[in-house]
Amino acid sequence: MRDIIEWIKNANKVKLGTFPTPLHRLERMEKELDYEGIYIKRDDLTGLGAGGNKIRSLEFILGDAINKNCNLIIASGPPQSNLCSLTASACAKLGLKCVIVNNGEEPDKLQGNMLLNYILNAEIHSIGIATKEERDLYVKNLYIKYKDEGNRPYVIENGATTGMGALGYVSATIEMQKQCLEGKLPINTIFAPGGNGGVAAGLIYGNALLGLPFQINIISVEDHKACLTEHILKTIDELVEITQIPFNFKLEDVCNITDKYRGEGWGVNTEESTDAVFRFAQQEGIFIENIYNSKVLVGMEAAIKNAEVTGGVCYLHTGGFGSLFSQF
Amino acid sequence: MRDIIEWIKNANKVKLGTFPTPLHRLERMEKELDYEGIYIKRDDLTGLGAGGNKIRSLEFILGDAINKNCNLIIASGPPQSNLCSLTASACAKLGLKCVIVNNGEEPDKLQGNMLLNYILNAEIHSIGIATKEERDLYVKNLYIKYKDEGNRPYVIENGATTGMGALGYVSATIEMQKQCLEGKLPINTIFAPGGNGGVAAGLIYGNALLGLPFQINIISVEDHKACLTEHILKTIDELVEITQIPFNFKLEDVCNITDKYRGEGWGVNTEESTDAVFRFAQQEGIFIENIYNSKVLVGMEAAIKNAEVTGGVCYLHTGGFGSLFSQF
Ligand SMILES: Cc1ncc(COP(=O)(O)O)c(C=O)c1O
Ligand SMILES: Cc1ncc(COP(=O)(O)O)c(C=O)c1O
Repeated sequence: MRDIIEWIKNANKVKLGTFPTPLHRLERMEKELDYEGIYIKRDDLTGLGAGGNKIRSLEFILGDAINKNCNLIIASGPPQSNLCSLTASACAKLGLKCVIVNNGEEPDKLQGNMLLNYILNAEIHSIGIATKEERDLYVKNLYIKYKDEGNRPYVIENGATTGMGALGYVSATIEMQKQCLEGKLPINTIFAPGGNGGVAAGLIYGNALLGLPFQINIISVEDHKACLTEHILKTIDELVEITQIPFNFKLEDVCNITDKYRGEGWGVNTEESTDAVFRFAQQEGIFIENIYNSKVLVGMEAAIKNAEVTGGVCYLHTGGFGSLFSQF
Repeated sequence: MRDIIEWIKNANKVKLGTFPTPLHRLERMEKELDYEGIYIKRDDLTGLGAGGNKIRSLEFILGDAINKNCNLIIASGPPQSNLCSLTASACAKLGLKCVIVNNGEEPDKLQGNMLLNYILNAEIHSIGIATKEERDLYVKNLYIKYKDEGNRPYVIENGATTGMGALGYVSATIEMQKQCLEGKLPINTIFAPGGNGGVAAGLIYGNALLGLPFQINIISVEDHKACLTEHILKTIDELVEITQIPFNFKLEDVCNITDKYRGEGWGVNTEESTDAVFRFAQQEGIFIENIYNSKVLVGMEAAIKNAEVTGGVCYLHTGGFGSLFSQF
């Protein structure tokens, strides 16, 4: 079996973030829950734009784009998309043109990530209320138009949840294993969000190839378990395709996936998730937004309270601070 | 002479931030200005609340408060004060009650740091348009009231610009010297903001006691040079009082202070400062707010363009990301 650590080291990637991100204890939560060894991995502090998980994905995706000699990046998502805003920051740093396609209702005032996009001078196409399929079609046409005009465009597909994007969290598992070894941190369980499943796929694949140092617990914030599982498997297939390092595991043997905390799905708060935003800030002085991280926190706290975990647990903070300012 | 590194190591302090903060190159700016060796010290990534310089100050100030067995912290400033919001985050982490006194006009909508204060459940006293003296009097009365009620209140004076608060930037010079030595970074000049002068005093005092590894350039964002100089000297006196390690230097021999970029003073943008917010984001993918960091950037770029510096320079990013969302 080829070595995933070697593979990641030699991959086409660009340096965007400030790594390793901090990993530290949550002492007040430990006291509150009477549980020893609750840690947080601070991927909110990836250090570009408003920070967050997508910076890791963009190191590989934009590395691929530059390797392909592209000069213009197209990202798409809702107006408060973290991915879009972080792509704009990354393009600024790399000197690439950034084009953003937003579907969904636009507020009167530039808030949160939309304000950041404006400051970054990204080219924004607001197409109003539209389905993801309609948005994808718009992106496709834009791609053709730019190509015809002599540009070398590159499209970031599916909110960066692709094999290429998931490499960011393969790399993160290597980073976390190293931090745990060097700092003698007794972490054996990671709690992470499942939206489109990119973070999850990267963690699960990376962790498996490293010899399963961690138990990976994925909290769906969007889809039912069957659907999220399918997305994760698809992305792992793409990872295998890219790295040529096989994944010889049954998914259920190397992770837990739950959809118990998703409520009505993506972007719809639950009473508990909103409570978690306030509670966590008031407990640790750290902010989480109310789409991904709040639901994961609810799931992790439940697992701890119900004694479903033993030993050190780690909460993966995936950032999204820019969007928080539009959520309240 | 007693050793400042030893002194800082043994000081009463609490751990609040994620240190050391990253220190990295600004490659696009280097190309743009045709200058080799422009670095940024990422004190926007101090890792508590919205991050920023005051986290360093609060480690010492709240260390003092806890040492004095206080249980309630009173901070004051304008509604978008970074210090107030960061104090609320720090109090959350430490389990202390936080009371904030705001003077100034209140917007209809909770934005930026005010939103963060709300999430943190700080007790807010909005006293409307009032002078700093009126605000200080209000704080004084509040202190007496809490004391009478049996609490053990502690007042953060002067936006944390005190000798105690400035210890944070004495500590930062030690951190930066270590980073430069370990990473073989050829930095010899630091550019930093001067508001009330706390950051400046800490840097100047720390740097002097370390044997002047850096040239410290302070850009006033608020007052005229004579006034800022007075504030800095007063704070250095307080530092000496606390540490009992004398400062045997003439200020003008160990730093440069300029008021050329302050415009009309605190909170009033200049055309160049607003431009800098946009330009820097579009160049490096990093956000700066438009009160402190934008004016420092303008000053540093001018110094580079006018060949007033040679060798590696470092831009101290003092954060304030929370306030950015209320500035545009
Ligand atoms: C803050 C944040 N957390 C988590 C995720 C989830 O990532 P994924 O879609 O790869 O599951 C995203 C994706 O947009 C995000 O922005
Ligand atoms: C973001 C930021 N930068 C710089 C400063 C300046 O600090 P000082 O008042 O110590 O000069 C402050 C103080 O409020 C601040 O909030």
